[in-house]
Amino acid sequence: MKIALDAMGGDYAPSSPVAGAVLALQEFPDLELLLVGDQTCLERELHRHSLAPWQDRVQVVHTSQVVAMGESGIESVRRKKDSSISRCVELVKNGAASALVSAGHTGATVAAATIKLRTLPGIDRPGIASVIPAEEHPFVLIDSGANVDAEPAELVAYAFMGSIYAEQILGIVRPRVALLSIGTEDLKGNELTREAFKLLTRSSLNFVGNIEGRDLFQRPVDVVVCDGFVGNVVLKTAEAAARAVMDWLKRELKRNVVRKMGAFLALGAFRTIRRKTDPDEYGGALLLGVNGTCIIAHGASSPKAIKNALRVARDSVKANVNGVIVEEVRKYHEQGHGPRLDVLSPAS
Amino acid sequence: MKIALDAMGGDYAPSSPVAGAVLALQEFPDLELLLVGDQTCLERELHRHSLAPWQDRVQVVHTSQVVAMGESGIESVRRKKDSSISRCVELVKNGAASALVSAGHTGATVAAATIKLRTLPGIDRPGIASVIPAEEHPFVLIDSGANVDAEPAELVAYAFMGSIYAEQILGIVRPRVALLSIGTEDLKGNELTREAFKLLTRSSLNFVGNIEGRDLFQRPVDVVVCDGFVGNVVLKTAEAAARAVMDWLKRELKRNVVRKMGAFLALGAFRTIRRKTDPDEYGGALLLGVNGTCIIAHGASSPKAIKNALRVARDSVKANVNGVIVEEVRKYHEQGHGPRLDVLSPAS
Repeated sequence: MKIALDAMGGDYAPSSPVAGAVLALQEFPDLELLLVGDQTCLERELHRHSLAPWQDRVQVVHTSQVVAMGESGIESVRRKKDSSISRCVELVKNGAASALVSAGHTGATVAAATIKLRTLPGIDRPGIASVIPAEEHPFVLIDSGANVDAEPAELVAYAFMGSIYAEQILGIVRPRVALLSIGTEDLKGNELTREAFKLLTRSSLNFVGNIEGRDLFQRPVDVVVCDGFVGNVVLKTAEAAARAVMDWLKRELKRNVVRKMGAFLALGAFRTIRRKTDPDEYGGALLLGVNGTCIIAHGASSPKAIKNALRVARDSVKANVNGVIVEEVRKYHEQGHGPRLDVLSPAS
Repeated sequence: MKIALDAMGGDYAPSSPVAGAVLALQEFPDLELLLVGDQTCLERELHRHSLAPWQDRVQVVHTSQVVAMGESGIESVRRKKDSSISRCVELVKNGAASALVSAGHTGATVAAATIKLRTLPGIDRPGIASVIPAEEHPFVLIDSGANVDAEPAELVAYAFMGSIYAEQILGIVRPRVALLSIGTEDLKGNELTREAFKLLTRSSLNFVGNIEGRDLFQRPVDVVVCDGFVGNVVLKTAEAAARAVMDWLKRELKRNVVRKMGAFLALGAFRTIRRKTDPDEYGGALLLGVNGTCIIAHGASSPKAIKNALRVARDSVKANVNGVIVEEVRKYHEQGHGPRLDVLSPAS
């Protein structure tokens, strides 16, 4: 399977994407990679790794432009035709690659994928599905940042896509879907969630009602649905709070010799927690709803994160997540229990 | 100073509010309390405490109704005229109490306070200001749950009120105000925050721009502004993430004898963190923008949390937070740098 990797995207590009690519080539023998970015720069980077055994499974695709973090995502698609992100999307569009991975500008990746690949039949707006660690097993948070002013029917589409992702990639049978809100009662929430609640109740999904922020890591649900603004804030706040607690604890543990000794003896426990809460373990979030497989990795992706993002891309293509989505959305529309999910551009 | 305490509100009422009242009477010699709720029930509860020296500073105000958690907040105000929440608000309205504290139904408290006390001149919608612990010093999060479908001008009003709260209660000179969004650049955000960003830039506040969830506990800001839906989700998610990490760690530390020994030696460090992240330390959130002092405590408030909520009420009245808000909002409207903050009901 051939995957396009935006080698210029992310805070540590190109060294981190290239190192991640090498890790992935070593671990997944069925993988071929197209490294997209400045040729000279990428070839120099590749030479730092002893690529010999996998050399024939990696190829550089030259591009001359990079989307900077401060740019407008949507404008970058129009103005930078030769950016590494745009090129990755085109490689998927023309069939040269089965999927793409980028740790670059999220808005630019979402815009390029939406404009060039178009959305899946029956879906209006794509959503980002992130996998979040929780006590018993991880859950899918959708949308974690693609669509910041969502409509109720779009949240229903996210619920469908998130449920299919949990089923196909995380192997969960009949995933429990919850709506993120500010109280568990039906009436609680804002205009958007109260309307979405009604639609979800009527759907064929295993909808278990509202979930509050306080229960996110305790209550056993598999998919948490929200708009992209709330999802992005929640995702980043949860990461920040977990990190803040560990950092404070680390400093407290250094205050005297007895505590330092205690910390040394308990090192294994700290390492387990660090691993459990490490976003790099989950690698990348899937942009669901576009007609192609597109993985959005963390801006600060380490080589391990890039490798795991490539794994998610490979698994998603193998599981035919998009095919299942199209089929399920078609069934939903046929049953006619709720409004169309593609209210903006209904299929004629 | 006389404060009305909703003794029927909260998950552990009436025992926790009554125990908290006793703690506060012991600690604050200038405090007098009106315990509002079922007389028989509250007198029985009071008898469990040796009240002798403070007995003359506490008085029971009988009410026959309680607002249940599943009820609609706004309807409860109309239908349960004799609820403990409504009665507390009336005691403030008619001057019998200087402030009220409730750990009961947040929506009902917000609705009763807004309807009966009305908003301050120049303010349309009240907002809940919560104090959140962070590494260097705590910050004020406003709105954390009163107004779930806010308008841009309402966010500007929250910025003013939060700034005044940080100044008057936390003692911060010229507080740094940030807008919670999904990127630090001006353009990032949803319709609501992009519009609020423009207004805040033109205000006289010390506005430092957008803040992302990831920086909440690291970047030194004093006030974080958002709508009530996002604020409530963020508050609860941060608490849940911090607690989840500590709980996982606790279980990991029990896995073998060496780790247990390590944990024992490091006990002091764990206790410091527990205290630093304990919501009970901050007691209660101030409902800012209503014409009266109203403190909303956590539903699961312990006696310590109730005592601290009473302390916040007392400090807010002493600092004349509402008087300062009215004055600052008047000045803002006079200067005319931005739209009126009371767009819905402008002063004639």
